[in-house]
Amino acid sequence: MATSELKLVGWGYEGDEITDVERHMVTSRMRERFGGEFEVRKAPGADAVDLRAPRISVPAALSAFATSSKRDRLLHTYGKSYPDYARQFLGDYRNAPDIVAYVRSEADIAAVYDFAAGSNVAVIPFGGGTSVCGGVEPVVGSAFNGTISLDLTRLDNILEVDKTSRAARIQGGIRVPAMEDQLKSHGLTMRHFPQSMELATLGGMIATRSGGHFATLYTHIDDLVESLRTITPAGVIESRRLPGSGAGPSPDRLMIGSEGSLGIITEAWMRLQARPKYRAGTAVLFDDVYKAAEAVRVISQAWLFPANVRLLDSREAFNNGFGDGRQSVVVLAFENADHPVDAWMDRALAIAKELGGSFDRDVAKSGSGHRAGAAEAWRNAFIRMPHYKKTVVEMGIITDTFETAITWERFPEFYKAILSATEDACLAATGQKGSVSCRFTHCYPDGPAPYFSFQAKGRHGALAEQWLEIKSRALDAVIAHGGTVTHHHAVGRDHMPWYRRQRPELFASALQGAKDRLDPKGILNPGVLLAARS
Amino acid sequence: MATSELKLVGWGYEGDEITDVERHMVTSRMRERFGGEFEVRKAPGADAVDLRAPRISVPAALSAFATSSKRDRLLHTYGKSYPDYARQFLGDYRNAPDIVAYVRSEADIAAVYDFAAGSNVAVIPFGGGTSVCGGVEPVVGSAFNGTISLDLTRLDNILEVDKTSRAARIQGGIRVPAMEDQLKSHGLTMRHFPQSMELATLGGMIATRSGGHFATLYTHIDDLVESLRTITPAGVIESRRLPGSGAGPSPDRLMIGSEGSLGIITEAWMRLQARPKYRAGTAVLFDDVYKAAEAVRVISQAWLFPANVRLLDSREAFNNGFGDGRQSVVVLAFENADHPVDAWMDRALAIAKELGGSFDRDVAKSGSGHRAGAAEAWRNAFIRMPHYKKTVVEMGIITDTFETAITWERFPEFYKAILSATEDACLAATGQKGSVSCRFTHCYPDGPAPYFSFQAKGRHGALAEQWLEIKSRALDAVIAHGGTVTHHHAVGRDHMPWYRRQRPELFASALQGAKDRLDPKGILNPGVLLAARS
Repeated sequence: MATSELKLVGWGYEGDEITDVERHMVTSRMRERFGGEFEVRKAPGADAVDLRAPRISVPAALSAFATSSKRDRLLHTYGKSYPDYARQFLGDYRNAPDIVAYVRSEADIAAVYDFAAGSNVAVIPFGGGTSVCGGVEPVVGSAFNGTISLDLTRLDNILEVDKTSRAARIQGGIRVPAMEDQLKSHGLTMRHFPQSMELATLGGMIATRSGGHFATLYTHIDDLVESLRTITPAGVIESRRLPGSGAGPSPDRLMIGSEGSLGIITEAWMRLQARPKYRAGTAVLFDDVYKAAEAVRVISQAWLFPANVRLLDSREAFNNGFGDGRQSVVVLAFENADHPVDAWMDRALAIAKELGGSFDRDVAKSGSGHRAGAAEAWRNAFIRMPHYKKTVVEMGIITDTFETAITWERFPEFYKAILSATEDACLAATGQKGSVSCRFTHCYPDGPAPYFSFQAKGRHGALAEQWLEIKSRALDAVIAHGGTVTHHHAVGRDHMPWYRRQRPELFASALQGAKDRLDPKGILNPGVLLAARS
Repeated sequence: MATSELKLVGWGYEGDEITDVERHMVTSRMRERFGGEFEVRKAPGADAVDLRAPRISVPAALSAFATSSKRDRLLHTYGKSYPDYARQFLGDYRNAPDIVAYVRSEADIAAVYDFAAGSNVAVIPFGGGTSVCGGVEPVVGSAFNGTISLDLTRLDNILEVDKTSRAARIQGGIRVPAMEDQLKSHGLTMRHFPQSMELATLGGMIATRSGGHFATLYTHIDDLVESLRTITPAGVIESRRLPGSGAGPSPDRLMIGSEGSLGIITEAWMRLQARPKYRAGTAVLFDDVYKAAEAVRVISQAWLFPANVRLLDSREAFNNGFGDGRQSVVVLAFENADHPVDAWMDRALAIAKELGGSFDRDVAKSGSGHRAGAAEAWRNAFIRMPHYKKTVVEMGIITDTFETAITWERFPEFYKAILSATEDACLAATGQKGSVSCRFTHCYPDGPAPYFSFQAKGRHGALAEQWLEIKSRALDAVIAHGGTVTHHHAVGRDHMPWYRRQRPELFASALQGAKDRLDPKGILNPGVLLAARS
């Protein structure tokens, strides 16, 4: 039975455990993949963790909503990345924040800023805490006297709903399920479902340029933002609520993706949608991954805008229970709130067929609100996936994903190069062959967003180091072959070395110029996007 | 016969004159609207203009490509706004640049920066010169020793075409017709056609967040940019070519809309499309403008993405030759390169019919490459319109447009308020009733972009002042009622007072912080977006 208490180690709430069936599936897959036996280790509980005393005390001005309790500090040390888990298993919480502030209002945030600026303390915004790239870990260099994790989850209300324009004014700390529950009563949905949706907060998704579950069109949080209200150490920035504007560079686009380094998003007017009524979905099989990619390209360039057009390479398809390990799969789905989607599906399937795809036409019929077979299975597995990570770590398996984007003409070479670099890295880091697979999460007219998953059999005690070796070599290849270090997982602290190689140096300087105005003392999430002051 | 020589006064090239039929149409419309006779005045030619001597001389480093010739200086004094014309008619070129530099390369741009920074001279980037908001007029305050207009139209090549990803690397100074001609040979199009397309340059469109002719989806230049190469006084910023990326705030989105104040866009990888093969279009008539707006809203929220879904209110429709002056019109069109669009058109028409629209179903059939009646007539009139402005000014008519955006739920009140404020302003400024009308240029799921046109009978000699009174009161109303000062005409110098009221003050500070890094001496387009140094 799920409680409202977050787990210290693992995904979600205490009581919501992986089922026996799921555990069996996960462990037997790993046994198939890597053979032999696994030593299963468990992470230490809070009581067993040796935590350093806070370097700063909760000041009177924050005492109504801030704490230095051990459990709160432990819960705000990490996000949900693989090395986060690996270090939790070692009981390593050396970077725990000194204070956790559960702000209830913008005034509370301002009070935190005042204290932090006056006491030389770094402030780490903490939304859902689902970062997979070190975005919430209080690693800020040696120039600060301490750290405060600023928890936003009490700012969790929907303040206004505009059914005519389909938009709502929503606080930044609300989690996706609570937000969707409330929107449902108005017949609306934000229709933005990242894999982290169970815990993710709206403000966190905006600050990290979250990608959403759907493969095309209005799926990125960037496009769903109508206006923002952001609290910076220098004051409030509130943009005007507008469907479109050409008045200078977009103020919102500076904040979207700023990862807590420029300010804290307390409210957003978000664009919503009617809940879908019509759906059609199926899976198309291809003997050749490049033919499958070609079909996805042509469909993406035809202005059909499927909800899903997700290529799974043969390894990824097999890992997800599709096919026999030789065929690639394109999960194809359309949905709409206004009209049946058969004409759209028919044309997409015709394209897929021309390029050698095979499918069961009967499964692809338009239904009313009902998800068709393959797409449904995919969606369920997708949402449960974060729950499996702890079990895999317990077995000493290294597992992670990384996502990027590349233009179509470079995809074949890119795909080969990244697969190969990651396979080589698994072997080099662990002495044993790993498993590497790829799917597309999003598709654009000019290219796909490939998402790579890898697993390797690691060594308890050295998992974080082995992971770093594999991930580094994989990201080296991504950057060398023209991709982006992140398509929707954000930069955080972990991706900084590659972000530095990707971004234009002068843009970093411009961003620092902007930050100097908004956060003159450099207290906000130091080390993320821009170097922490030393 | 059109030449390649730009007109000093009026639209386009010498020799491409308004036809007798067009002139008769324009003058008789004005006579119908305002009655009586008009005194026709002609603008002075270059010879008759008394131009101050340049305050600075062309330095040796720029002599290969820069000039202080009278004609070049006159041609780079103004854009194409109404007050630009009005002042040209008075022979007022007091703000002419001292030097015009026809840069041939990025090295030439760097040489201009070096000279300007060393000699305290302001640099005004000049692309197509079609600004309707004072974006290219060298008004820079008194802190500079002179001004250089930096003409980019010699950077006019397409450097690379990627047919697979549908993208091309294009220089910033190319004009739309030359660009489209070259893309056509590859079966591609950028499909971005602002009304200024005959003269507009790619870099100028990107720097001003150009809107494009199509009403929904990938129509804004913002969405068509894959990557940018920008030359700033501090150096080069070049972003990576990517279909999508979540790595921090978008570097491109800082430059898009920067209006020459942060750097000069010399190259862009632009997203392209296949040329459309299938089209369907018709006009739907409504007795009530709010019912028409409701139909546009529902169509815009249905994910149908028409190429056009353009509401013309009854006055606007009548002015454009539709209907009897009582009915509002929705020009509705679909097009696609991949598949017939009947299913899309059928659903949009069903929505329009439910909301009381009437139309000729036979006209709306999908054709292969052929534009249907009303949409075709509209398109032709749209493209010729810039050619008519001079004739209207010669008659002493004040004419202008302004465009904004507003969420749907506020549209009815907004529409009434802006119409009424603009009508009142015409009367107050001229003592005579003006004509004010509205259409939608772009439609989003959360609101339309209303575009207002006004004409009033002015007084020769005072046209610019009368125009300013009307425009100011209209924009006061736009800002007071929640709109944006510009949806796709940019800010320039003319819109600064309202832009200041619209933008978050702290965002201006952040933008200044970024500018200080990229343009440390503040030489680039001073007074646009940010205050010129004093």
